[in-house]
Amino acid sequence: MSEEKLARLKTIAAEIADLTYAGALLGWDQQVNMPPGGAEGRGYQLATLQTLAHARLTAPETGQLLDDLQAYAAQLDPDSDDARYIKVAKRLYDKQTKVSGEWIGEFAQATTMAHQLWAQARAEDNFALFQPSLEHIMALRRGYADFFAPYDNVYDPLLDDFEPGLKTADVKAIFNALRPQQVELIKAITAQPQVDNAFLYQPYDEQKQWDFGVEVITKMGHDWKRSRQDKVAHPFTTNFGTGDVRITTRIYPEYLGTGLFGTLHESGHASYELGVDPRYDRGVLAGGASLAVHESQSRMWENLVGRSYPFWEHFYPRLQEYFPSQLGNVSLGAFYKGINKVQPTLIRVEADEATYNLHIMLRLELEFALMEGTVAVKDLPEAWNARFQEYLGITPPNNAKGVLQDVHWSSGYVGYFSTYALGNLISAQLWERINADIPDLPEQIRQGEFSNWLGWLRTHIHCYGSKYEPQELVARVTGSKIDPAPYMRYLTEKYSGIYGF
Amino acid sequence: MSEEKLARLKTIAAEIADLTYAGALLGWDQQVNMPPGGAEGRGYQLATLQTLAHARLTAPETGQLLDDLQAYAAQLDPDSDDARYIKVAKRLYDKQTKVSGEWIGEFAQATTMAHQLWAQARAEDNFALFQPSLEHIMALRRGYADFFAPYDNVYDPLLDDFEPGLKTADVKAIFNALRPQQVELIKAITAQPQVDNAFLYQPYDEQKQWDFGVEVITKMGHDWKRSRQDKVAHPFTTNFGTGDVRITTRIYPEYLGTGLFGTLHESGHASYELGVDPRYDRGVLAGGASLAVHESQSRMWENLVGRSYPFWEHFYPRLQEYFPSQLGNVSLGAFYKGINKVQPTLIRVEADEATYNLHIMLRLELEFALMEGTVAVKDLPEAWNARFQEYLGITPPNNAKGVLQDVHWSSGYVGYFSTYALGNLISAQLWERINADIPDLPEQIRQGEFSNWLGWLRTHIHCYGSKYEPQELVARVTGSKIDPAPYMRYLTEKYSGIYGF
Repeated sequence: MSEEKLARLKTIAAEIADLTYAGALLGWDQQVNMPPGGAEGRGYQLATLQTLAHARLTAPETGQLLDDLQAYAAQLDPDSDDARYIKVAKRLYDKQTKVSGEWIGEFAQATTMAHQLWAQARAEDNFALFQPSLEHIMALRRGYADFFAPYDNVYDPLLDDFEPGLKTADVKAIFNALRPQQVELIKAITAQPQVDNAFLYQPYDEQKQWDFGVEVITKMGHDWKRSRQDKVAHPFTTNFGTGDVRITTRIYPEYLGTGLFGTLHESGHASYELGVDPRYDRGVLAGGASLAVHESQSRMWENLVGRSYPFWEHFYPRLQEYFPSQLGNVSLGAFYKGINKVQPTLIRVEADEATYNLHIMLRLELEFALMEGTVAVKDLPEAWNARFQEYLGITPPNNAKGVLQDVHWSSGYVGYFSTYALGNLISAQLWERINADIPDLPEQIRQGEFSNWLGWLRTHIHCYGSKYEPQELVARVTGSKIDPAPYMRYLTEKYSGIYGF
Repeated sequence: MSEEKLARLKTIAAEIADLTYAGALLGWDQQVNMPPGGAEGRGYQLATLQTLAHARLTAPETGQLLDDLQAYAAQLDPDSDDARYIKVAKRLYDKQTKVSGEWIGEFAQATTMAHQLWAQARAEDNFALFQPSLEHIMALRRGYADFFAPYDNVYDPLLDDFEPGLKTADVKAIFNALRPQQVELIKAITAQPQVDNAFLYQPYDEQKQWDFGVEVITKMGHDWKRSRQDKVAHPFTTNFGTGDVRITTRIYPEYLGTGLFGTLHESGHASYELGVDPRYDRGVLAGGASLAVHESQSRMWENLVGRSYPFWEHFYPRLQEYFPSQLGNVSLGAFYKGINKVQPTLIRVEADEATYNLHIMLRLELEFALMEGTVAVKDLPEAWNARFQEYLGITPPNNAKGVLQDVHWSSGYVGYFSTYALGNLISAQLWERINADIPDLPEQIRQGEFSNWLGWLRTHIHCYGSKYEPQELVARVTGSKIDPAPYMRYLTEKYSGIYGF
């Protein structure tokens, strides 16, 4: 009887997954292929798919099944797939049913307007134009949190949307420990003579950049039978089950870094989805554990592996073959230092590995303050600039290059930014664990041997999909919850070597 | 009250359209982009979208709305959009509700198996392997017709799926009049010295073929803001409303004809969808009137325009610039004759303009006979070969190149073939009408001026979408129902000039 109800729940979830996958393909196509004339129709199509999926999830039948299955779930091994399935389905159901239809409608309207006003405000460097919209969004986001009252912190329900089970208090503790160390590290680095990366800024043939990127990720284990890569303005990874996981990239004709490390980054995201147990396809345990765990994979491919010395010991001769006139006279050592140049800059998406987290922490603290009511939206530019000077030693010349630079808030995302920095931390925790389990990993990478590394990620992280919450998964694999220490050890060792302090 | 019900009906239809458009995009992606690993998941996604669309259409609410709206529709101008909307919606509803769920399930299973067996039977030239499956499909198709009893002819309900309102008796009358004339024409042609088209069979750079095709259809008015072209194994056109209409093509590196005329053909289909009144988007009046009317557009672009002398007076110098070594020494006259070479051959998809309809008539007569019970499936190869000899003067050397060559029957399509030939007939009827309305059209085409021609099609055919049934539409525009005489006049005039008889 309970087995039948669980089977019925899984059938409903499979239909929702199909609608969601179809919507994801429509979204992919919108970025990659769609002619401009398709925009209006595509909006209707996506809305209909989302509405149907929402209706299916929040139907009384789903709630009844979940209620009926609670007693059954309590008897199961709590680590069994079925127990987790019921738990995750219940969380998704609660998330979608507790929020009122009125709120959803008002939020959709508010973010549509806010997005337009933000784009204009950024173009005109006019924060006041965006301010009322942002106030409205923050008020709506507090209203959203209240649907999930009681909570320890008003930010908890927002964070939970991206990082299931993670608490604001935990995130604050993590970043309060991390921030002063990162600030000190940046000071130590910027006190040293700067390294040169001018060789990255030359004409690089776009097709050759593309081909080299494909060659590299192929060697790293990217499975093209279940993937493809396309060009877009803003790269992303998407998937429709584990059998079709698509990456995108953007290539600049006069700068090597964007295409190369972007391809590595997206391929890291893709490796996660490609490694999820295919039995989870079309169910609530499909996909990664959270955005932060996802980012731990992309950042590991891009940075811990992709910007490491052994990696380029293997690939640099090949890169020089692709670009002899540009790199023939650049030594491996100079190349390695150049791709790891640290320099505090204004724009998050252009930030290097060492300063990136400070960009995130700044945003995160402002989000906390906005939600807790300790900073008003109208005071945001001032608060932004003051923190920017404190953490990165520079002050934005205007709001367009400061508080207005990111799209997230205008799209209604609050709670999202932390996932970028948490991903960096998790990547280093996993990296220490992997290197303990595979002591000669640097030598393997030097030899272009990536299968043991990828195999480790497959069996320790990827295969579980979203069965475990992020803190739980990290603890199972590394023995501790999310912890900033490994990341600081990683950064300090790496940059003391590069900058010699 | 009735207005509200009609609005509700249109809302339901819009959701069904969104699901159908989403499914069409998934289908397009499957042919154009999907990595092989995506196949299984894509099957589930398409099935879910189709199931939801079917459920939405056949829900009791839809039937009740349609019943309630009949009296209202009777009071409207029968040519008004709303009256037609209710009529077409009722036809679609009846089509989908009269057929039992059991039949749909059995048919899906039977065609899946039949398709596999057909592919194997064709590869092995073993008709007996396919015979039981084909018998099953024909029995199921008779069962399908019976859901719509009473009928004048058992073939009527099948034909109606592709050509709403058209009767088997009409089709028989049309082709009985046409067949002897076409056979005589072929005899007259083949009695003359053959023309040479060997110059088409040389290496032609694929990218240049692509570029030339794009240049040509752009000049003919193809709207790229609402379209794109991609390469596939089996070309088709698809769309998701009037704002996103996609064509596909296939280019052979050592034969010029396939890519060039294929691009023209698909662009003709696309021109129809691009020209439908955008107010019909997301509703039952969207899309073309029928497959035959659609084919009249693709065949006009490909043949009546694209294989005409004035057309190449304009474009041939440009084509010679693209391919100087291949065509520099081929005169315009020789090129024109070469692309219009008539030669009875075994395979329908490779047939020329003059013999094509005979391939269709042969299939059509066999379909009639199979459905009416006058030919048994086991006797099909013999019947096929006898007719082939009679109509085209050759006998297939085996069944793989004879009765097994087409995929349609194995996919369960019965009633489809006629649309190809009817499309040819309609194209010539429209062509006579257009030339009467635009007397200097050949001169305009010679000048590369296509806007009046396309404008005529827009206002006389395209804009109406599927508001009118095909016979009705043809009669409104040309003054008579589908009629083979203009097509025979067209073929006779054209080929008597080329072959000199």
